[in-house]
Amino acid sequence: MTMKQVRVGIVGFGTVGRATADIISKHGDLISHRSGVKLAVTAVCRRSSIEPIDTPPGARVYSDWKQLLQDPNVDVVVETMGGTGDSLQLVRAALEQGKPVVTANKNLLAGHGDELFSLAVARRLPIGFEASVAGGIPILRVIHESTAGDRLQSVHGILNGTANYILTQMETRGIEFAEALAEAQKAGFAEADPSFDIDGQDARDKLCILARMAFEGGLDVARIPTYGIRHVRAIDIHSAHRLDSTIRLVGSAEQTEAGLEVSVRPWLVSRRSMLAKVEGVNNAVFLVGDKIGMQMYYGRGAGGDATGSAVVSDLIEISKDFAAGQLNPKNIPGFLSSQQLKLSETPRPVSWYLRLTVKDQRGIVARVAEVIAQEAINIDSLEQEPHLPKDRVSFVITVEPVSEPIIRRAIHTINEFEFMVEPVLLLRIED
Amino acid sequence: MTMKQVRVGIVGFGTVGRATADIISKHGDLISHRSGVKLAVTAVCRRSSIEPIDTPPGARVYSDWKQLLQDPNVDVVVETMGGTGDSLQLVRAALEQGKPVVTANKNLLAGHGDELFSLAVARRLPIGFEASVAGGIPILRVIHESTAGDRLQSVHGILNGTANYILTQMETRGIEFAEALAEAQKAGFAEADPSFDIDGQDARDKLCILARMAFEGGLDVARIPTYGIRHVRAIDIHSAHRLDSTIRLVGSAEQTEAGLEVSVRPWLVSRRSMLAKVEGVNNAVFLVGDKIGMQMYYGRGAGGDATGSAVVSDLIEISKDFAAGQLNPKNIPGFLSSQQLKLSETPRPVSWYLRLTVKDQRGIVARVAEVIAQEAINIDSLEQEPHLPKDRVSFVITVEPVSEPIIRRAIHTINEFEFMVEPVLLLRIED
Repeated sequence: MTMKQVRVGIVGFGTVGRATADIISKHGDLISHRSGVKLAVTAVCRRSSIEPIDTPPGARVYSDWKQLLQDPNVDVVVETMGGTGDSLQLVRAALEQGKPVVTANKNLLAGHGDELFSLAVARRLPIGFEASVAGGIPILRVIHESTAGDRLQSVHGILNGTANYILTQMETRGIEFAEALAEAQKAGFAEADPSFDIDGQDARDKLCILARMAFEGGLDVARIPTYGIRHVRAIDIHSAHRLDSTIRLVGSAEQTEAGLEVSVRPWLVSRRSMLAKVEGVNNAVFLVGDKIGMQMYYGRGAGGDATGSAVVSDLIEISKDFAAGQLNPKNIPGFLSSQQLKLSETPRPVSWYLRLTVKDQRGIVARVAEVIAQEAINIDSLEQEPHLPKDRVSFVITVEPVSEPIIRRAIHTINEFEFMVEPVLLLRIED
Repeated sequence: MTMKQVRVGIVGFGTVGRATADIISKHGDLISHRSGVKLAVTAVCRRSSIEPIDTPPGARVYSDWKQLLQDPNVDVVVETMGGTGDSLQLVRAALEQGKPVVTANKNLLAGHGDELFSLAVARRLPIGFEASVAGGIPILRVIHESTAGDRLQSVHGILNGTANYILTQMETRGIEFAEALAEAQKAGFAEADPSFDIDGQDARDKLCILARMAFEGGLDVARIPTYGIRHVRAIDIHSAHRLDSTIRLVGSAEQTEAGLEVSVRPWLVSRRSMLAKVEGVNNAVFLVGDKIGMQMYYGRGAGGDATGSAVVSDLIEISKDFAAGQLNPKNIPGFLSSQQLKLSETPRPVSWYLRLTVKDQRGIVARVAEVIAQEAINIDSLEQEPHLPKDRVSFVITVEPVSEPIIRRAIHTINEFEFMVEPVLLLRIED
């Protein structure tokens, strides 16, 4: 049979866009052999700062995405610009022009997924978005296809490679957060403005998409309680080790009788836990289902090659349908249902780790313990690190399972004490 | 729109067959909501020993699969009989009658996959076979779809839950192989005749399918060197711990310059390795690709619910196409290519663990060490366990990387010594 060519236009020619073009070029024959279609990058839109040498041979180069959209030699549009400004306009316009879209943009989908998927369905077009969550790990496809016969109970995991890199650097080398962050920036694993990664918004966007896919309803990303790792210190890693544990930034969505519990926050996890085994810039997603039990999906969560691989796998799937003349939107209930996911207002009790930093004076432990006792919370362990400067003493309390609003109420009271140097650091302890 | 019903006939109503019917019944509404098709089990074929109470309400019950195939109210056939006798005839006949098939039968596909996939293509029918490898882990779909743009370098993993259960019981409780096997049988994790699991054939069949999917060529299952765990003793687990390691049965296919290296055998793995974290009846598959890097897929590898989930996910995919009137075979190059995978004849050097059991006498270590030195193999460590009975002394040698034929030649010589009580146990050491 003659090989049908599918022409790809890439907008946003940064790390992921270039890796996508590179994979299509390097593995083109393999892709043709497997799928029966030939992918060709015929246009790219890039900022002028990109070296021309990186652009695929034969591809037209634009600096304005509107021009690329007018190019009649583009069948499918790949969006790897990021953000929600131009990218939103681009995806809207591409769909309105009848062009399928592949995007790696979690921020866009977490914020505007409903609109874009509705538009795609109206135009009978697919949106490929595997690359938007967990890089090369095909977790969205797995949820959509492989658990189609199961009822999921929870999805959680390590969704941000930068934060995980920083935490594992702190862990293996005993360094402070600031030093680990600076090194991550130097190594290219963290942005100049790292807040999106270290304060949890990136993980939150991904969790929003995962939760919508797994539980099939709307979820306003702003309603996901989100805490980052900016306030985790070397002393916390040290205390975690004393408890045979370590610290991971975890996004978690769990179906309970009271509704969905969803959050991004640092967890104290046992060193024997699978979460603890996830090191460096890797990601891992855990699914728990009625029938499948617990599954773990692990791999590179970011970087051009891994994310580009996900873009290309979506491109191949869409291109096969395109070549066969039967483009179809997927039924993605999580972005097409008018029903919102019901969030729990009474989170189930879990154990917590509290680290207090205080100016040392007599009676501190008694006063803190009294606040905790008043909320009927049981202390599980308490340790004050020896040999610390008197004006900055840390001590760590772990407590038995209690619902989050109760521990937060206690912390609110404790934070008011005059001896507190900074607010309590709160970590959820893995069940 | 009206919901199209797809009628399912299940042949082989054992654990997996019943779980499949149960999932379709329990999650029917969820499946309809997601996929737009209604699955109904309209016929089962079971041995008379199955309790009638387990059969789905309204389903016709046959004791002969040929009768089920004649039933006009069956659109898709699920084969969960196992083995390669009747199951081969059934799948052939179903395809010849124009009915799509879903099978959980690794043994059938490892042995007769070429014939069956060719027949399916000729009839333009799909065969769903996700359930044939690693139970509920959707590893075949991942290889086929999600790595479609990448070149895989290796696929390896823990593919047999029974063997892994036995090894982890030996590890955590310090018991001998025979005791762990007896308990696994009692717990329902091992068959009365356990050889298929503990001697590695089950893992070999799964590895054969994985390797064909990953490297896209033919592979005669009989050409996969296969060693089981029958000869692993408590003393090996003990020695592994001394080396900060443990033991896992690993199926591995790795592309090297000299060709594909493929085997099923027990490995000595570091306790920090991801492989060591896989405990009990769980499975884990690792993929390494040019672009995706290393990925791990982990979950329940057996049991009705997990395997039934995989059957149902295939059923849903096929049923959507069936309802749309566009059934299509998948292009599975690994089973449709006339090209055979080239196996390496010069395996790359790896490290090895040797355990010798001898009647104690003077000069044994010297004689063994001389054989090893003659093959130009470097010893990395050597330890004799103290306080053993003189007529049955174990000692353990680990050696630096050397190609398998060389270490086997040395072992062949060592096994001839008059002081050897039983043959050397050989474990590959994880890189």
